Amino acid sequence: MGRVTERRRVLRIRATGTTSRADTLVAEEPLEIRLNGKPLAITMRTPGDDFALAAGFLVSEGVLGAADELSSIVYCAGATADGSNTYNVVDVKLAPGVPVPDITLERNVYTTSSCGLCGKASLDAVRTQTRFPLTGHPPVRLDTDLLAQLPDRLREHQRVFERTGGLHAAALFTDRGELLDVREDVGRHNAVDKVIGRALREDRLPLSGTVLMVSGRASFELAQKAVMAGIPVLAAVSAPSSLAVDLAAESGMTLIGFLRGTSMNVYAGDHRVAPRRAAAGV
Amino acid sequence: MGRVTERRRVLRIRATGTTSRADTLVAEEPLEIRLNGKPLAITMRTPGDDFALAAGFLVSEGVLGAADELSSIVYCAGATADGSNTYNVVDVKLAPGVPVPDITLERNVYTTSSCGLCGKASLDAVRTQTRFPLTGHPPVRLDTDLLAQLPDRLREHQRVFERTGGLHAAALFTDRGELLDVREDVGRHNAVDKVIGRALREDRLPLSGTVLMVSGRASFELAQKAVMAGIPVLAAVSAPSSLAVDLAAESGMTLIGFLRGTSMNVYAGDHRVAPRRAAAGV
Repeated sequence: MGRVTERRRVLRIRATGTTSRADTLVAEEPLEIRLNGKPLAITMRTPGDDFALAAGFLVSEGVLGAADELSSIVYCAGATADGSNTYNVVDVKLAPGVPVPDITLERNVYTTSSCGLCGKASLDAVRTQTRFPLTGHPPVRLDTDLLAQLPDRLREHQRVFERTGGLHAAALFTDRGELLDVREDVGRHNAVDKVIGRALREDRLPLSGTVLMVSGRASFELAQKAVMAGIPVLAAVSAPSSLAVDLAAESGMTLIGFLRGTSMNVYAGDHRVAPRRAAAGV
Repeated sequence: MGRVTERRRVLRIRATGTTSRADTLVAEEPLEIRLNGKPLAITMRTPGDDFALAAGFLVSEGVLGAADELSSIVYCAGATADGSNTYNVVDVKLAPGVPVPDITLERNVYTTSSCGLCGKASLDAVRTQTRFPLTGHPPVRLDTDLLAQLPDRLREHQRVFERTGGLHAAALFTDRGELLDVREDVGRHNAVDKVIGRALREDRLPLSGTVLMVSGRASFELAQKAVMAGIPVLAAVSAPSSLAVDLAAESGMTLIGFLRGTSMNVYAGDHRVAPRRAAAGV
């Protein structure tokens, strides 16, 4: 547990010569997520916040939406031949009455994770339906100067990245720029699931009035996870994909890409962004 | 087909003002891979080289290893309600006698793709066995000066990345630095599967004497894909994970990370790398 980094011997080749020394790497291990005792998914993740990761994954899948729908999450023994606990298998028990997805149905196989939606056995299963529509909440309106600060604030909290260069990060901010949470993981979808899962366990869903900031690109899966948690604004340091933009537009979510320095591109939902030009135009 | 990029309207916010204009995005669409008519996996990919992607995915899964094991790959109609062909569903038919994995077995669900191994329903299914051991081939020995050129040569061929900033790339080089192939995709695992699938279809497996260069980080899934195709050297621009290093060490694969300029870190299999120091030490 908590093996966020690991040490390995490395041959460092530089223009000035070659040395052999120990190096710090980001830890990557498989996590098997079971639902009511049945294997559901495996994700390659950085150990830590495993219960939150499992909970957030189930929010993304549309299974969970409130803390009281979750009965328990435990580590399972027995993942190895000798029955010892590797802390790489968790079992999520739903509260009585919460519908259990039928994982035996070929058209709805719940066996994904590392990409949030790969593993679905057919195209029909790709699109999930959110129970938290992004309309109807008090409107969020973000100042571009505030948005411009978010990447630096995210980076400040990327502690493991600095040591390993190997982690993605996801951070949740209020619409006034207050940092609510930040998680790092070898998979960016896991970092997002951990943030959302921690919020679910504290019964803070839907995450109205928040901004999800991710360190890399904005793919469809990340946009979908944000929509499923009721997050109205997704901001990414790098490029979005076409399908992420389409989903954001359909869902009424604001999607910002290439958020760097004072620059940003708003791909959808620009009614939530107050451009600098307006402020200067008085 | 061939929708590698798409145009979307974007609000560009800069320090100098705000403009609305069309922007080029990397296309992302789901591809459903069927095996002998049964849904097997969905991956979110950039359209193009879909048959190679499906073939390479099946190499990674240990289903395919030679061109004559493949009977046909076709696009399926009927993915939409009106039965039209979206070019987002492919069906792979194996040659007679090639073992079909039992996708109904809970412990071996073949429903992953976007991460190469997520989606496996249990931990036992994570590790695949390669039919191409990395020992026994004529030894590959790479000069560090040759390795140092690979990132620039990869970048030269990343045509879509330059327009969108949204693509990962994978390139295959000979051990003398000749470029054999390069593919781009919104998912780096897809880019690798496309390279390997194109080689499979030309019956060039195992890919002995080659170097696989990837634009990002080296995760376990990418290391595993290289091992499954018999590629002896994996080089990445960014950091490897602990499990990627462990798999490389166990498999006898050379794993190079942080390959930038004249610098690189060799995490496993350093017997294939001739350090600069040796050359200068005469």
